[in-house]
Amino acid sequence: MPTRLSSYFLRTLREDPSDAEVTSHRLLVRAGYIRRQAPGIFAWLPLGLRVKAKIEAIVRAEMAAAGAFEVHFPALLPKEPYEATGRYEEYGPAMFRLADRKDAGLVLAPTHEEVFTLLVKDLYNSYKDLPLSIYQIQDKYRDEARPRAGLLRGREFTMKDAYSFDYTDAGLDASYQAQRDAYERIFTALGLEYVIVKADAGAMGGSKSEEFLHPTPVGEDTFVRSAGGYAANVEAFTTLVPESRSFEGLTPAEVLDTPDTPTIQTLVDRANSAHPRPDGRAWTAADTLKNVVLALSQPGGTRELVVIGLPGDREVDLKRAEVAFAPAEIEAATEADFAKHPGLVKGYIGPWSPEGAVLGEEGSTGIRYVVDPRVVDGSGWITGANSHGKHVFGLVAGRDFTADGTVEIAEVRAGDPAPDGSGPVELARGMEIGHVFQLGRKYAEALGLKVLDENGKLVTVTMGSYGIGITRILAIIAELHNDEKGLIWPPAVAPFDVHVIATGRDAEVYEAAERVVADLEAKGLDVLFDDRPKVSPGVKFGDAELIGVPQIVIVGRGVAEGVVERWDRATGERTQVALDAVAASFG
Amino acid sequence: MPTRLSSYFLRTLREDPSDAEVTSHRLLVRAGYIRRQAPGIFAWLPLGLRVKAKIEAIVRAEMAAAGAFEVHFPALLPKEPYEATGRYEEYGPAMFRLADRKDAGLVLAPTHEEVFTLLVKDLYNSYKDLPLSIYQIQDKYRDEARPRAGLLRGREFTMKDAYSFDYTDAGLDASYQAQRDAYERIFTALGLEYVIVKADAGAMGGSKSEEFLHPTPVGEDTFVRSAGGYAANVEAFTTLVPESRSFEGLTPAEVLDTPDTPTIQTLVDRANSAHPRPDGRAWTAADTLKNVVLALSQPGGTRELVVIGLPGDREVDLKRAEVAFAPAEIEAATEADFAKHPGLVKGYIGPWSPEGAVLGEEGSTGIRYVVDPRVVDGSGWITGANSHGKHVFGLVAGRDFTADGTVEIAEVRAGDPAPDGSGPVELARGMEIGHVFQLGRKYAEALGLKVLDENGKLVTVTMGSYGIGITRILAIIAELHNDEKGLIWPPAVAPFDVHVIATGRDAEVYEAAERVVADLEAKGLDVLFDDRPKVSPGVKFGDAELIGVPQIVIVGRGVAEGVVERWDRATGERTQVALDAVAASFG
Repeated sequence: MPTRLSSYFLRTLREDPSDAEVTSHRLLVRAGYIRRQAPGIFAWLPLGLRVKAKIEAIVRAEMAAAGAFEVHFPALLPKEPYEATGRYEEYGPAMFRLADRKDAGLVLAPTHEEVFTLLVKDLYNSYKDLPLSIYQIQDKYRDEARPRAGLLRGREFTMKDAYSFDYTDAGLDASYQAQRDAYERIFTALGLEYVIVKADAGAMGGSKSEEFLHPTPVGEDTFVRSAGGYAANVEAFTTLVPESRSFEGLTPAEVLDTPDTPTIQTLVDRANSAHPRPDGRAWTAADTLKNVVLALSQPGGTRELVVIGLPGDREVDLKRAEVAFAPAEIEAATEADFAKHPGLVKGYIGPWSPEGAVLGEEGSTGIRYVVDPRVVDGSGWITGANSHGKHVFGLVAGRDFTADGTVEIAEVRAGDPAPDGSGPVELARGMEIGHVFQLGRKYAEALGLKVLDENGKLVTVTMGSYGIGITRILAIIAELHNDEKGLIWPPAVAPFDVHVIATGRDAEVYEAAERVVADLEAKGLDVLFDDRPKVSPGVKFGDAELIGVPQIVIVGRGVAEGVVERWDRATGERTQVALDAVAASFG
Repeated sequence: MPTRLSSYFLRTLREDPSDAEVTSHRLLVRAGYIRRQAPGIFAWLPLGLRVKAKIEAIVRAEMAAAGAFEVHFPALLPKEPYEATGRYEEYGPAMFRLADRKDAGLVLAPTHEEVFTLLVKDLYNSYKDLPLSIYQIQDKYRDEARPRAGLLRGREFTMKDAYSFDYTDAGLDASYQAQRDAYERIFTALGLEYVIVKADAGAMGGSKSEEFLHPTPVGEDTFVRSAGGYAANVEAFTTLVPESRSFEGLTPAEVLDTPDTPTIQTLVDRANSAHPRPDGRAWTAADTLKNVVLALSQPGGTRELVVIGLPGDREVDLKRAEVAFAPAEIEAATEADFAKHPGLVKGYIGPWSPEGAVLGEEGSTGIRYVVDPRVVDGSGWITGANSHGKHVFGLVAGRDFTADGTVEIAEVRAGDPAPDGSGPVELARGMEIGHVFQLGRKYAEALGLKVLDENGKLVTVTMGSYGIGITRILAIIAELHNDEKGLIWPPAVAPFDVHVIATGRDAEVYEAAERVVADLEAKGLDVLFDDRPKVSPGVKFGDAELIGVPQIVIVGRGVAEGVVERWDRATGERTQVALDAVAASFG
C-alpha cells in the first residue's frame, strides 16, 4: 500500500525553526522528519524514522557480514560498573546520573563497554569461546554542555556500538580489522566519503584508535594529512622531534632588561631593537619560549597548576590540551593562583631566574613544568626571568633548566612535518562518522574478565570498541545532500523510492495516478503518493522538493495524451514518459 | 546464511537463576534469551532479540492496517508537560526523575500521552487534519516498588503505545474501535487467548477503558465475568445497587450493650445470644455495618481520614480502594489518628451515637463518610455506637444517618450479580496483555490542544491511548509455551523456524547437514544450525529442547541410509524423513 499524503502524519513547515544552526537541522525539521523536544533531544516523525531504519539496515547487514551478533542493553544501568572502571567520575557532568526509589545509583549509559564486558564475563570462560564480536543499535544519552547543530551533537542519539573480545593481541588486531573493514563498506554503501585518521583514545582508554572522518569544510573536527599517506586528527598528531644539540660553544645565559614586554610580539620587537642577535639575523617569535600557566581540575576534585613551555610562535590548542590532560578540566590560572606563587611573575615567567631554577625538576615553586617536544636539550631560548621587565637570553634546555616531561598541546600548522617522515601536512576539516578503538585490557582488567587459555592459564581478555552514530550520520547525509529547495536523499537511504504527485482535480488524473502507483509498487518500489485533492500543484511540488525523495513522477493534464513526467530531484531534469511505461522506466 | 551454534553468542545454563520467580524468567535466562542487569532491568541476547523483533513485526503490521503511523520519542523528556497534566506528582515514586547539568528537570517517560499531545498541537490545527492515530515501539521506564517475575513486571520494558486524536466523540469511538480491532488481530496472530474486560482508567484519566487479559490461573489480575457476557476487572466492577426501601414500619434504633465485641464475629455471636432477632432468624455478618478508618495521602502532601461503611461480611479490596481513591496512597488509620478523634471509639465505630450524628453530612467529627452501594436508604444495620462495648441495632440509612457518598471498594465475590443484569459473576485470573483507553479531553485540555471545527470554532481534541507491552507479551508467551525441558515457541514468534542438529563426528554427517540447511534456507526458512563438532548428541538435544525452536531436524548416522529425523518440539514426535525430502516435508 502506498503512503498517501492525504492522511499521512506529516506537516511541512514554511518557516525555518528559530534554533536551527545548520542546514540539516533546518531542513529535517521543516520537511517533517524530526521535532525538537528539549535542547538536543528530538522526536522522530514517520519520514525520519524511515530514513533511520534504512541506515540501520545497512549497518546491521555489514555487522552480520563481519560476524558480529546483535544484542540490546537498556539505557538505564547501575552505576557500579562505571565506578569500577573510573568512568563514572571521568565522564563528569556529561553523564546523566539518577537514583531509584531505594537510592541505588543509576546512569543513562553514554557507551556500554562496562556492561558488555560483564556480560561476556558472565557467560564465557574459555579461549575456545573467542573471538567474539557483539553489537547493539541503541539510544544513548550524554549531557552535552552545549547541545547544538540539531542531530549532529544531541543529548540523545542512536548509536551502533560493537565490542570485540579476544585473548591475544593478534586476535584483537583481526577483530579490529574486521570492524574497520565493515565501516569502510558501510560508508561506501551510504555514499559517504571518508578519511581514516589516527585518533586519540581519550576517555575510552586503550592503545590504538582511528576515526572515520567525512572531509568537509564545515566539519567540527580538524585533521592533518600528508601527501605521503599520514592522517591523524589534531588531537592525535605527534610532533616530529628535532635532534638534541650539543651544549658545546653555546654562550652562557644572560639576563637583560626588556621593559614593557609582557607579550611575545613586544618582546621580539624589543629584542631586535635593544639586543640584536649576534649573527645579525632577526629574532622571531620562534626564538622565544612562552610559558603558559594552566590549572587542571581532576574529576576527584584536586586542582593542580602546571606550566607549559612552548615556542612563542605556537598557541596552545585547547582540544589537544584536553586530550593530553584528560580527564582533567583545564582553565587558565587565576590571579589567586599567581598570588600564591610570587616566584612566577606574570608576563615574565620562565623556568629559571637569576636565583636559580624556578620550574621543572629542581624548581623552587614545585610546580610541574612540561614543554613542547621541540624544546630539546641544547635548544636555546629567550624567556622570562621571573622578574618584572626582565628576560633571559640564551637559556639552554638541559643545561640551564630541565622540564618534567613533554606534552603535545601546541597547535598543529600546515607545513609541519608528519611524524612518520612522509612530508609536510596540510590541515583539513571533517565530521566524525565512526570511531574504532583497540581498548586493550583496560576494561577487562578493571572488571575481571579472564578466560582460560590453551594451557589452562587464566588470561585477561583484550577488547575493541567500535561506534557509529546512526542519527549523526543521518544528519550528515542531510547536510551533504540538499539545495535551496530542500533535501535530496541518496537512493540508498531515501524514505521512499518514488514520490508520485497527482495534480489538478480531474478524476481521470487521480485514477491514472493510482494505476502508476500500483505499477511502481508491483515492482517493489516504496511509493509516497501525494493524493491531496485540494492542494495546488505549486505546493505539492514545493513539498516534494523539501522532502527530497530522489525520483518524482508528476501525473497531470498530460494523462489525456497518455503521458506523465519524471522529475529527477537531484538534477532537476524533467522528462516525459508514457503513462504505461512509468514503471518500466525505473529499470 | 544459517546461524551456526559453533560461533553464535549463546550460552545455555544448567542452573536456574537464583532470583527467578516464574517459569518464563527461569527459562528465558537459562536458554540464553535475556540476562539480568539490575532488578527489573535486562539485556537482550541474540535469541531474545529475534523473538522480540517477530512480535514487533506483527504489531507494526496491524498498526499499519489500523491506519496508525509510526513515530519515535526519546525516553528522556522534560518534566514540564507531565507537570501540566498533574502526572508528575501523581506517578509518585514510580517515575524516574533526574536533572541535567543546568538543573532542568527531566523524566524517564512511563508513558507518552503528554508529548504526543504536544506534538499534534505543534503541527495540526484543523478538523481536516483529523482523525489521526500515531504510535511508537519504545523502551519505557517505571521505578516499580517490587520489580519481579522477570520481564512480567520490570523497571524497563518495551511498549507499543498508540494515541488517537479526534474532534468528535463519535470520531474517538471509531478510532478506539480500530485499535481495539487491531489488538484482537494481534493477539490472534500471536496465538494468545484473551478476554476483553471493562477496566478502570486509573491514573490515565478518561472516560472508558478496557483491558485485554489472558485468562490463566497464575495471572496477577482478577476479573469477573457473567454467563450473560459481562466482563470487568475487579477494579472496574460496579455493584448492582438494591432498591431503596421505605422507612415505614421500621422500629427505632436502639443502643444495646455488647461487651467484648470488637470484631464482626464476636458481635454476631453476642447479638444472636443476647439480642436475638425479632423474626427468629439468626443475625449474620451481612446484617452488620463495618466501619473502616483509612488515611488517604494525596501526592500534594495532604493527609485526610475517611471512614468506609460496608456490610460486615465484606472485606475492603485494597486494589479497588487504590483505584477508588487514586491518586492517593492509602494506609490504615494510626493510633495517633484515633487519639485526635475521641468521637470515634475503636472497635465500636459507627456513623451515629446516642449524642447524635458522628460521621456523614452532619457528623460531629467532620470526617468524610462513604459507604458501600448496598447501604441504600431504608436499609437497617447493627453498627458501633461509638461507645466502648455498645452497638446500635436497627440504625437505618437515610433516617438515622446520611453518608457523604458511596464507594466501590468492597471485595467482589463469585455469585455477585453483574451490574448489567446478565446474571451472577464468576471470578477468574488473568494477565494483562493490552489496555485501551478513551482518554477524552483531559490531556488536550491540560495542554491546550484545540483545532478549528467546520464552523471555524476552536474545539478541544478528544484522545485515546492504546498500549501493548511487547516484552511482557514475550514473557507471557514463554510462560504459556514450555515444558520441563524448556521453551516451545509458537511458530509465529519462534527465534528460528528450524533447528538442525548434526550429531557425531562423521564428516559425511556434517556435509549432509550443510545440504539440509541449505535446502531449508532456500525455502526461506530461518535455520539455527548446531554444528558444534565436539559436543555430545545429548547436550545438543538438551539445548534444542531448552531453546525451543518448534521444529528440529537431527542429521546423524541415518545419513548412511539416506534418512534424517524430524522432531516436533511440542509433541515430542520423531519421524524419519529421506535426506532429500527434508525441505519438502516443511510444506
